[in-house]
Amino acid sequence: MTRQSASRTEPLGPGVGRVETRLATVADPDHPLQLVSGDHLDHVEVAYETYGSLSPERDNAVYICHALTGDAHAAGIHDGETKPGWWDNIIGPGRAIDTDQWFVVSSNLLGGCSGTTGPTSMNPATGQVWGTAFPQIDMHDFVEVHLRLAAHLGIEKFHAVVGGSMGGMQALDWSLTHPDTLDNAVIVAASSRLTAQNIAFSAVGREAIVRDRDFDDGHYLDADRRPDTGLSIARMLAHITYLSEDAFAEKFGRTHQFGEPRRGFGVDFAVESYLDHQGETFLTRFDPLSYIYLTRVMDYFDPFGTTGATDLVVADPVNYLVVCFDTDWRFSPAHSRRIVRHLEGAGLPVSFFTIASSWGHDSFLMKLDPYHDLVRAFLEVPAGRRTGRASRRAPHHDGHICTREVDR
Amino acid sequence: MTRQSASRTEPLGPGVGRVETRLATVADPDHPLQLVSGDHLDHVEVAYETYGSLSPERDNAVYICHALTGDAHAAGIHDGETKPGWWDNIIGPGRAIDTDQWFVVSSNLLGGCSGTTGPTSMNPATGQVWGTAFPQIDMHDFVEVHLRLAAHLGIEKFHAVVGGSMGGMQALDWSLTHPDTLDNAVIVAASSRLTAQNIAFSAVGREAIVRDRDFDDGHYLDADRRPDTGLSIARMLAHITYLSEDAFAEKFGRTHQFGEPRRGFGVDFAVESYLDHQGETFLTRFDPLSYIYLTRVMDYFDPFGTTGATDLVVADPVNYLVVCFDTDWRFSPAHSRRIVRHLEGAGLPVSFFTIASSWGHDSFLMKLDPYHDLVRAFLEVPAGRRTGRASRRAPHHDGHICTREVDR
Repeated sequence: MTRQSASRTEPLGPGVGRVETRLATVADPDHPLQLVSGDHLDHVEVAYETYGSLSPERDNAVYICHALTGDAHAAGIHDGETKPGWWDNIIGPGRAIDTDQWFVVSSNLLGGCSGTTGPTSMNPATGQVWGTAFPQIDMHDFVEVHLRLAAHLGIEKFHAVVGGSMGGMQALDWSLTHPDTLDNAVIVAASSRLTAQNIAFSAVGREAIVRDRDFDDGHYLDADRRPDTGLSIARMLAHITYLSEDAFAEKFGRTHQFGEPRRGFGVDFAVESYLDHQGETFLTRFDPLSYIYLTRVMDYFDPFGTTGATDLVVADPVNYLVVCFDTDWRFSPAHSRRIVRHLEGAGLPVSFFTIASSWGHDSFLMKLDPYHDLVRAFLEVPAGRRTGRASRRAPHHDGHICTREVDR
Repeated sequence: MTRQSASRTEPLGPGVGRVETRLATVADPDHPLQLVSGDHLDHVEVAYETYGSLSPERDNAVYICHALTGDAHAAGIHDGETKPGWWDNIIGPGRAIDTDQWFVVSSNLLGGCSGTTGPTSMNPATGQVWGTAFPQIDMHDFVEVHLRLAAHLGIEKFHAVVGGSMGGMQALDWSLTHPDTLDNAVIVAASSRLTAQNIAFSAVGREAIVRDRDFDDGHYLDADRRPDTGLSIARMLAHITYLSEDAFAEKFGRTHQFGEPRRGFGVDFAVESYLDHQGETFLTRFDPLSYIYLTRVMDYFDPFGTTGATDLVVADPVNYLVVCFDTDWRFSPAHSRRIVRHLEGAGLPVSFFTIASSWGHDSFLMKLDPYHDLVRAFLEVPAGRRTGRASRRAPHHDGHICTREVDR
């Protein structure tokens, strides 16, 4: 197939329109949230958005799990803003996650900094911000909070849980630990186990934050300075891994930002200007401690490292769609293949596709038609057609120009 | 061929023994060094070492060009130390660059911080350290200083100029600009043109230094603080690119440094400890401004971007050996192939080999037998055997278990 640079600009119809982020209290002293670490949280608020309408049977809900630095605002437009949510190209009327058909729920992660309880929230027990006293969290804790939000919304079972990158890890964890609460899981550009190199990139980003003098052992939240230098550096570094080498070459090559070379200490090449901009804008929307807490969750995620990891889901099978992108080197296709091997090895129904895209890891956020068509078709296949739930037969998707691979 | 993890530990015989770094003055007010930037330096000292003996005919000299953070101490042992020079495994009696046969010269780069004049040196005109007032430098300037050292040593022509990574770039530049001063060039794991991704990695490292508050607009040399945080971060980041993903997996995997996981803000995974150590030890031997100046030289290097780049060398051909490593993703084999394409396109004699090694870019520093055998054989082929100097015939190396590729 050809590279999808053309199709990603195909115009979209109107989206979900005006939306707002709401808050739900999902843990209180009578219903504390027990964490994997052994700690518990007496108060947890979750920021979330919903798009579309829940059917009377409550059987059309789709949960969106965000990646490392996402938030609840996945689609539509906030009052007074013009930029839509971070996954607006896939969620909306007639879009791949079609809000004419599905009731879509999107929430901000525990430990995040966009409305859900995290290290920048107030600890009610002390009246102070949590800071580094916020407990260590785990992928399971994310899923637990998602399920509490579901209960708050009156949803017992999701038609699908969908996520890219760390969002895909949540979808995977959810399917393994609570398979009775979802029918389908869509796992895009994810990993079940970071490599040493993956951890290395996260580690250098964290070190840039922690070693920034303004981090002040994590007490910066009480001060008027923040380790912005460290956070920018971490973000710039991460962005190198989000694009493929070819995408960098295509986007920037060796062009100079100001026409003529300005050899010296500042920005000169266009790629430097891009990274600089990414580092700066990130400061307006993210918190250094949240960055540390959330990257750590990814480092430790290793669900198949536990004996019996698939026992629950084998007893109550979930249908899987695993998607990766050929030029993704943040989580290369080998990561997705490992997920597929484990799931197929347990006899679970898995569809696996590698999409050709020159954009690397960032492809999961892009409107690449074969990718979106695939997600649309997977969500629309009636549950009844997936009869052999514990068989190795994956649902068949006609007419997609994607490469299907199953690699054991 | 099989991966070379076994052979790289094959014991070496005794090396060149006790050595010392000497200083040569190669520019003074009567013979200033004119730089590409238009500036000049009225005083340049070069730190260098030599191994072996110069033949009476002065025809057995081999110049070693170091990579980004190397120094003049390539082989042997300094008084009071136990660790040999950075390329000791390839230089010595009976080694691939055999000091029983060759007179080896190794020097520290202009702009460096290990003896040769650079931003940490005193500017004689002001009596102050240069700091950011040190002029911008270029790959051509490196070569000019090497040639001045050669003149100081009474060497008009080198049997070979050898270098890995940025050392290979110097060897390439030298061969293109002063082909009359060398017979052979050995260019290992190098590039003739950094990609946007390559520049991105350097840029984030530089930003970590420049944004460190202790950088103080480059005035830290007059203060009692240095941007050590930034320099460590830059080094940690660079080290991620020096090893292949497989090498990281093999060396560290997901093992924990202290046996049991210690989830939190500090080092836990072994790979984190490794990077931490690399960042720390680098501080004892490198300077932040030198790091900025030298990485900038690489960013701007693009010899084949100039019309007529090969005119001089075509008129007075140099024999080339270009070597790369299959898992190198800092400068992938594609970079070496581009060098080969340009040289072969100009009708120059080029031998090109891709060595299988699981270690990535760092392979150029390792004792991989096929690689060292290749360098040895290339250096030993008598000049007379390379008759068709302007032909496309590369010298033939018998018995090497390396893959030979010529890619146009």
